[in-house]
Amino acid sequence: MDPLHILRIQCPDRSGLIAAITGVIAAHQLNIVVMKEFVEPVSNSFFARFEISGALNVDEITQELGKALPPTTQIELHAARKKDIVLLVTKEQHCLSDLLVRHFFGELHANIKAVIGNYDQLASFTKKFDIPFIHVSHEGLTKESFEQKIIDAMQPFEPEYIVLAKFMRILSPEFVAQYKHRIINIHHSFLPAFVGAHPYRQAYERGVKLIGATAHFVTNDLDEGPIITQKVINVDHEYSVTGMVQAGHEVEKAVLAEALKLLLEDRVFVTRNRTVVFD
Amino acid sequence: MDPLHILRIQCPDRSGLIAAITGVIAAHQLNIVVMKEFVEPVSNSFFARFEISGALNVDEITQELGKALPPTTQIELHAARKKDIVLLVTKEQHCLSDLLVRHFFGELHANIKAVIGNYDQLASFTKKFDIPFIHVSHEGLTKESFEQKIIDAMQPFEPEYIVLAKFMRILSPEFVAQYKHRIINIHHSFLPAFVGAHPYRQAYERGVKLIGATAHFVTNDLDEGPIITQKVINVDHEYSVTGMVQAGHEVEKAVLAEALKLLLEDRVFVTRNRTVVFD
Amino acid sequence: MDPLHILRIQCPDRSGLIAAITGVIAAHQLNIVVMKEFVEPVSNSFFARFEISGALNVDEITQELGKALPPTTQIELHAARKKDIVLLVTKEQHCLSDLLVRHFFGELHANIKAVIGNYDQLASFTKKFDIPFIHVSHEGLTKESFEQKIIDAMQPFEPEYIVLAKFMRILSPEFVAQYKHRIINIHHSFLPAFVGAHPYRQAYERGVKLIGATAHFVTNDLDEGPIITQKVINVDHEYSVTGMVQAGHEVEKAVLAEALKLLLEDRVFVTRNRTVVFD
Amino acid sequence: MDPLHILRIQCPDRSGLIAAITGVIAAHQLNIVVMKEFVEPVSNSFFARFEISGALNVDEITQELGKALPPTTQIELHAARKKDIVLLVTKEQHCLSDLLVRHFFGELHANIKAVIGNYDQLASFTKKFDIPFIHVSHEGLTKESFEQKIIDAMQPFEPEYIVLAKFMRILSPEFVAQYKHRIINIHHSFLPAFVGAHPYRQAYERGVKLIGATAHFVTNDLDEGPIITQKVINVDHEYSVTGMVQAGHEVEKAVLAEALKLLLEDRVFVTRNRTVVFD
Repeated sequence: MDPLHILRIQCPDRSGLIAAITGVIAAHQLNIVVMKEFVEPVSNSFFARFEISGALNVDEITQELGKALPPTTQIELHAARKKDIVLLVTKEQHCLSDLLVRHFFGELHANIKAVIGNYDQLASFTKKFDIPFIHVSHEGLTKESFEQKIIDAMQPFEPEYIVLAKFMRILSPEFVAQYKHRIINIHHSFLPAFVGAHPYRQAYERGVKLIGATAHFVTNDLDEGPIITQKVINVDHEYSVTGMVQAGHEVEKAVLAEALKLLLEDRVFVTRNRTVVFD
Repeated sequence: MDPLHILRIQCPDRSGLIAAITGVIAAHQLNIVVMKEFVEPVSNSFFARFEISGALNVDEITQELGKALPPTTQIELHAARKKDIVLLVTKEQHCLSDLLVRHFFGELHANIKAVIGNYDQLASFTKKFDIPFIHVSHEGLTKESFEQKIIDAMQPFEPEYIVLAKFMRILSPEFVAQYKHRIINIHHSFLPAFVGAHPYRQAYERGVKLIGATAHFVTNDLDEGPIITQKVINVDHEYSVTGMVQAGHEVEKAVLAEALKLLLEDRVFVTRNRTVVFD
Repeated sequence: MDPLHILRIQCPDRSGLIAAITGVIAAHQLNIVVMKEFVEPVSNSFFARFEISGALNVDEITQELGKALPPTTQIELHAARKKDIVLLVTKEQHCLSDLLVRHFFGELHANIKAVIGNYDQLASFTKKFDIPFIHVSHEGLTKESFEQKIIDAMQPFEPEYIVLAKFMRILSPEFVAQYKHRIINIHHSFLPAFVGAHPYRQAYERGVKLIGATAHFVTNDLDEGPIITQKVINVDHEYSVTGMVQAGHEVEKAVLAEALKLLLEDRVFVTRNRTVVFD
Repeated sequence: MDPLHILRIQCPDRSGLIAAITGVIAAHQLNIVVMKEFVEPVSNSFFARFEISGALNVDEITQELGKALPPTTQIELHAARKKDIVLLVTKEQHCLSDLLVRHFFGELHANIKAVIGNYDQLASFTKKFDIPFIHVSHEGLTKESFEQKIIDAMQPFEPEYIVLAKFMRILSPEFVAQYKHRIINIHHSFLPAFVGAHPYRQAYERGVKLIGATAHFVTNDLDEGPIITQKVINVDHEYSVTGMVQAGHEVEKAVLAEALKLLLEDRVFVTRNRTVVFD
């Protein structure tokens, strides 16, 4: 089978962009397997993602595309490959176990290099799957020291993405800035409803008839980052807060798995505080 | 066919309630077609709804139930029947037309006695269905006078429920107090996300991946009343604000029709700021 | 605002197609507003739909595209416009009323030229909306004569699409052949479950927990044509057949409206017995 | 906290049943936490499920209920407890891993006593969770001998339910008869669409826009047993058969987990070929 490459383009919109890009690809006799594009009208930005089959020289094609496109264009071209990721957890297992099982059976388009927990409850479960578990307690530490310890723990694994798989500590702007658009979080509500702590209790008190979960990039503003995926399920008056939490776990793990899949397949762009998702 | 009655009970919970109620029903050789009950644990309140077939004396049964149940019990017993309602509208047609068509074909469990609009755009459409349309403009009037004119307009129709079918004016606490738990509204968002004006614009800016609608009782606090029904649909980066509005209309009319059906069939109870819905 | 054109391409796949098409468009300084493409791997066919803004000469562009693309390519290029359609009905109103109301308020991307019914129950309702209703009874007629009468009745309206909005007669292969991929039907089940008559009764007997509806192109094989849209809703043991029918009506009209919108916006391609839908 | 008991009643309908049952419960000062009932109109059968809190003598209450109810009444009364189950698998892991993880974290209302596989691929994964894996190959055996070996393997565990978690062999009527309404299966389609083998390929060929999964009791007729739970997800023309299989796995495991939860909580009754599910 021919090798598969992913090409991602982001630039100001103007006419002729698709012709310019596909002209370069065609000139090399490469085949476009899938192509998706979108023009964001507010910022007048062009986004495109291509799956290209055929042997190619990444540097050469990138250079040619650079010449054919506006000077501020962001071009990413690389062979399709699994990415290295690290998971951060606290005590809840449902997202972690879901990702570890997918990883174990080769269904996650990533290498889980390590799991870091601020508690050690999930250590033995993680180790069943031969993934290193690193316990970095936050106790007695300033946020700064705690985060530095996490950074140190992650450092040898050079993760492309950091997944907060029910990590219940708020990260500082300094931490977040180091991994711009590379940290994703699962929030246990349909954002922007029920920002902050105890969303299921808030949902119960408000008497909502749907509860949900949101996977989003982490930015400086708590629960305010660009949303990747959201899902909801029906609830009714018979649900207690505990019942909502249990039902919510099912949605949370499904939403996180789906968002992570989109991210790992290079399908997500960020523009302003929104995402463009080529699914 | 035997006549059908609806019995609704609301009282503090204690053991033996169902035995007491069904004992009275059984003593009269009446048949319980459907029974639903719920104990709300926070307030320790008992709610039940029965559909009872067979000829019965409403006063007699009500009196016997009163004796068998705690003194503060609320008992409602009446023959199943269509209720009289009035619709309040502004300019948007999608909820109004949906309800008028259902009514025309006998599929709405209600008699629409009149449509009142603060604009007259929907007059000619309403009249196609032989329903009176009353134009009560808010222009040049204080809120108080405007609302008094609406109350005067509704008065001859003695509506049991008032349906805000995209009525875009906020009602005063005084108005609302006159029709406690008898006014329902359709809000064009998944409450409590995007309270207030322009929810679709807010949703667009926030980049959500689902948009929704909420049917709720109107209380003094804007968009804060007990929720009856909510639904959402998927959106993605390709939706403009206008596209969200159009897609949202489909959800709004579906949610309002469903909530109204539940209400008209006496399936909805209010407890604190939540609803118990026996669907 | 610039005029908008729709370009649809269908041809055998080969590398360089998108470059060839977008090259022609770019050479005329036209702007691609939206572009979607798909390669069907079984037949190795390429499908694409473009929305193009800017003044253009349809014949000239079509000719240039013809030269740039494989000889068997099907090219459709036309200004975005409302299409003329005719609705066929029997006695049920829910799909008809939904389409008439959308049409009345300018929300259907089509001109409903006429409604033809084999019963006359829906005549007075149709006429409220100033649409001609033509009663063509099937009684006492052979299928051939009945269908000829329908064809005669439709003839002056020159419909681009014929919508079976709960038309409960099976059309002959001869009739269908005259309007290839131009007749759509709403079937009241999640096809291929419950083909044929009384799908809700079949669904009830089978005890399914979901019921659905399917909009599809009509072909010679009953209920076997290419599917455009499907939706389902939850049901449970409390649903009688009648309850399923009522709940099903909501899905049927939603599915038909959605499929028709896709069709009228030129988003649907047929390949083998499947559809490619660029939504 | 008071002990919780589950009471299930199934009998011919007649007036006074609920009064009779709740009269017995009230006479013992027991508290009804939840009560659900249903009258199946075709067979005129009454079904009810109660959660009762308070100390009680099972034999005494059962006897009293027996006296108060029709002679053919089926009464089940037992303390709420985890049930013993055995899982049968072939090679696919997604349902097995989902159930093993839930079990490991105490979230499955059951004790998984053993996993039996006709291949040994899933042995090492199962053993991570300290659950016995028994390999019973079908190779070279008659169906009769193969099934006898499975029965022998299960025998020491005395399972109340047998869960076919992607067990790809058809069981004989003799096997099924031994475990009436105690075997549940997950079928990878929205039954009754795509009965039999390769439902995803069938779905792909038919061009459906939704794919689903069905959890059902196993009866003599393949894929024809009473349905407990069904779910679907959207697919479009971009899904290959493989893509449908992958997406379908998510639905299959969710549907099986949900059906099993309902079963283990004694919420499912069978009547004719349908289920009554008190969720």
